[in-house]
Amino acid sequence: MRRAALGLAAWPARRSAAIARVSRCNSYANRVIGRRCISHHTNQSIAQLLQWKPAEKADDVVVNGYVRSVRSMKAHRFVSLGDGSSLAPLQALVHTDQAQGLAVGAAVRLTGSWVASPGNSQSHELHASKVEVLGPSDPKTFPIQKKYQTPEYLRTMPHLRPRTPLQGLLLRLRSDAIATLTHFFASQRFTQTHPPIITSSDCEGAGEVFTLAPATKPDRSGSKSVPEDSFFRSKKYLTVSTQLHLEALAQAVGNVWTLSPVFRAEQSDTSRHLSEFYMLEAEMSFVDNLETVMDLTENMLRSLSTSLFATTTIQELFSRSAQIGSGLAPADEVKRRWEGLMQPSWPRITYTEAIRLLQQKAELFTLKPTWGAGLQSEHEKFLAEHVGGGKPVFVTNYPRDIKAFYMLEAQSDPQSPGATVECFDLLVPELCEIAGGSMREHRLPHLLDAMRRHGVVTPASQMAGEIIAGQDSHDSGSNLGWYVDLRRWGCPPHGGFGLGFDRLLSYMAGVQTVRDIVAFPRWYGRCDC
Amino acid sequence: MRRAALGLAAWPARRSAAIARVSRCNSYANRVIGRRCISHHTNQSIAQLLQWKPAEKADDVVVNGYVRSVRSMKAHRFVSLGDGSSLAPLQALVHTDQAQGLAVGAAVRLTGSWVASPGNSQSHELHASKVEVLGPSDPKTFPIQKKYQTPEYLRTMPHLRPRTPLQGLLLRLRSDAIATLTHFFASQRFTQTHPPIITSSDCEGAGEVFTLAPATKPDRSGSKSVPEDSFFRSKKYLTVSTQLHLEALAQAVGNVWTLSPVFRAEQSDTSRHLSEFYMLEAEMSFVDNLETVMDLTENMLRSLSTSLFATTTIQELFSRSAQIGSGLAPADEVKRRWEGLMQPSWPRITYTEAIRLLQQKAELFTLKPTWGAGLQSEHEKFLAEHVGGGKPVFVTNYPRDIKAFYMLEAQSDPQSPGATVECFDLLVPELCEIAGGSMREHRLPHLLDAMRRHGVVTPASQMAGEIIAGQDSHDSGSNLGWYVDLRRWGCPPHGGFGLGFDRLLSYMAGVQTVRDIVAFPRWYGRCDC
Repeated sequence: MRRAALGLAAWPARRSAAIARVSRCNSYANRVIGRRCISHHTNQSIAQLLQWKPAEKADDVVVNGYVRSVRSMKAHRFVSLGDGSSLAPLQALVHTDQAQGLAVGAAVRLTGSWVASPGNSQSHELHASKVEVLGPSDPKTFPIQKKYQTPEYLRTMPHLRPRTPLQGLLLRLRSDAIATLTHFFASQRFTQTHPPIITSSDCEGAGEVFTLAPATKPDRSGSKSVPEDSFFRSKKYLTVSTQLHLEALAQAVGNVWTLSPVFRAEQSDTSRHLSEFYMLEAEMSFVDNLETVMDLTENMLRSLSTSLFATTTIQELFSRSAQIGSGLAPADEVKRRWEGLMQPSWPRITYTEAIRLLQQKAELFTLKPTWGAGLQSEHEKFLAEHVGGGKPVFVTNYPRDIKAFYMLEAQSDPQSPGATVECFDLLVPELCEIAGGSMREHRLPHLLDAMRRHGVVTPASQMAGEIIAGQDSHDSGSNLGWYVDLRRWGCPPHGGFGLGFDRLLSYMAGVQTVRDIVAFPRWYGRCDC
Repeated sequence: MRRAALGLAAWPARRSAAIARVSRCNSYANRVIGRRCISHHTNQSIAQLLQWKPAEKADDVVVNGYVRSVRSMKAHRFVSLGDGSSLAPLQALVHTDQAQGLAVGAAVRLTGSWVASPGNSQSHELHASKVEVLGPSDPKTFPIQKKYQTPEYLRTMPHLRPRTPLQGLLLRLRSDAIATLTHFFASQRFTQTHPPIITSSDCEGAGEVFTLAPATKPDRSGSKSVPEDSFFRSKKYLTVSTQLHLEALAQAVGNVWTLSPVFRAEQSDTSRHLSEFYMLEAEMSFVDNLETVMDLTENMLRSLSTSLFATTTIQELFSRSAQIGSGLAPADEVKRRWEGLMQPSWPRITYTEAIRLLQQKAELFTLKPTWGAGLQSEHEKFLAEHVGGGKPVFVTNYPRDIKAFYMLEAQSDPQSPGATVECFDLLVPELCEIAGGSMREHRLPHLLDAMRRHGVVTPASQMAGEIIAGQDSHDSGSNLGWYVDLRRWGCPPHGGFGLGFDRLLSYMAGVQTVRDIVAFPRWYGRCDC
């Protein structure tokens, strides 16, 4: 019954031991994306073949892949093949007569016998009887080499970089993470949504957003642009966060989530920022307090990491990070991160408590921790490391004036020297902020007050509530009138969070920069391919 | 064992009959997103409550929702509540003394007893003992009314439109479809990817793409734009298709897919086009022929429709489409569409055969079917209806000159009057083209020839192969040099398809226009909220 449920009914009994070994948990990631089912003899990935250890020789095995290296023996060549499904290559023995075109980088199809290997590195190897070069390669010009190539160099050719074994691993990590999250939210009955990318509001203040316009035909006017308001009648932007639109959807169908690209036109050149990245955002309606939002964030990340931890992808990640020149953080560091994410009961402290803690260690910091100012990265680092003890840390209830206008004002706290909002930042060791969330201001007059206080640009007529739904809202510029509208009719208490998906993956993988976790990264001055 | 596998172990036995009734198949959609598990007494959705039919009264039941209508009785009000989880509302009986604030649109929390209803419309109803108005509403100004409102009117307020029962249903359909597809591709060992949105190439010819630039601060220069090349050093575009980037990833990790927003700056005003929409694209490597790509497309759509068909969402869709003024195509039409999608062995005919068929009925068409010209919508409609017999129809091998440059030239066919490419359009009755795919030209000289023939703008130096990977590729304008690069080293035969996800959903749902299946639709001249 169990084997049938795993889709393994057709497997010969002798493979059961291998299954039992890797089936450490029955998580979604392990069940569906564990990459363990072999349909005999055709279309096996190299990852699948490497796990298949028949006692007797198996004939007519077909392998597709790319040549990673070739070693000449007397009458044979030893060919290492990769196909992106595993870090480890498959070893094939090819007779020299058949080895023409087996150059590094070539796309080949080998047919032969899968036999126990006399060598130590792999239990089995392919003895090829047929060689087909499907896509030739000139190894002299092929820019991807087996020897160490710096991340900086590889970043100059994003179209070829995915072919490196490490990038293949990172692509599989992303895919496994998306599937696992989709399953998590479906099982929690969240509705997955597609909020818009092109929006009417430059939400967090103009100047750091992109605007768009139809491209002109190059033969007419070169790089001259058409007016930004020509296509949609007024200026539009690429979204910086889907939150405002998610709130509208949460008021309609309850708990919602999305994994959506967002855009920032910041001229930053750091290891943590991109101009285009994926954001995981969720919004819950009818929730009474921030604890519920933090519970969701924590449960989601623990479920994700626990589920992924049992997959072969993560076993490969740990083995890779243990190698010198891996391009990843050291193995024990990467493991510490995963252990932290998988632990229960992450600490939750208020901003006010955090400032008090930091002030007790004021001598450690370049910038003095002061109530009312934002936490500096050195402060966040201290909190993540000393409060969390390896676990992620929620810092809650920041001062109202340094947070976004839409956050719900907190009940006044006698311990706190000023007004705060019901929000959190989630800090992890080393990388610091990885997610942020809040309860949203659901009361109309309070929201309007907060918008005025934050200087959010909205036409006066809308602020006064004189415009009602839909009327000419597409003509009113940086319009948040519709967002205010959401409070006019039946707005329950609600809250949500946003998590930088690429940043999370870069933390889980231990890459040096978020530019190495995104296949085609875009940042200030760089948009290759 | 079966119940445990479904996560239903905790359910009382008396609910089993209801489970058995809806568990018609053990598909992913039905198992995970069937919305059938009740955690007793708290956080039930209305959909869950409506399926719960206890023989005895249950106390302390809490319901969150929005007031859809209120009917006054003697000492009571009958309140209809919706929460977006079901088309049908929940009926609650509230004592008039407690009914203050129970206005249409209000967000409320009712606590009470769940008891068998004497009325016919619903088996059970809530007898409220506690009423909390969490978000008040002024019913006089609330734009969403219980009476019929035209799709055109509702489209003027996309931020409120999701609150209508039909839009809630469509949002759930989308969510279920995403989860089911994610599961399908994971189980087929496809890697889900995030290709870039901002790209260097205006792939299908300039003039119908958006370009972007950092927004200027509004207080400095009004709507004046900054140069388009100021941020990324050269002009960049919003992607019209992720295919080219997917090909790079498929050459790295094998079969890949994505569900990604894409953008078109077409000035079209039809029921089938949007400026921003989601495209499902998949790319397979090491595939030898177009049949395999069509098999994937067909299997995916059949798996999706079969899996969704068993969910309560689709049962609701059929019941809604049977109502007058439903905003949907008639029920028998919608059912026909689903039956077509679920059937095996969809017809596959060549373009040349199609032209021959059309020419035999030339009198039916305004435009004469001619070999070498594109199929007109009247032609596609005829083919979808007469060749398919209800099933979708693949039309393959179109003339080379009317298709994209990257398509693989077909072996010359004695039946065909001119050169064709290995491609397909997938046509469905009424809506016509819903997906398109092809084998890609994987041979370097042939691709370069095709690019020249199609007039694809690429600097001469790249065409001559003088620039190799990565070198200054970010400075070279509408650069496809990187795409050519993919053929230089190890490019196996490969192919894939793209499917308009919103168009597919609009077909499955039977809405009049794709603008009604997208929460915040954007088209020429319109981008509300």
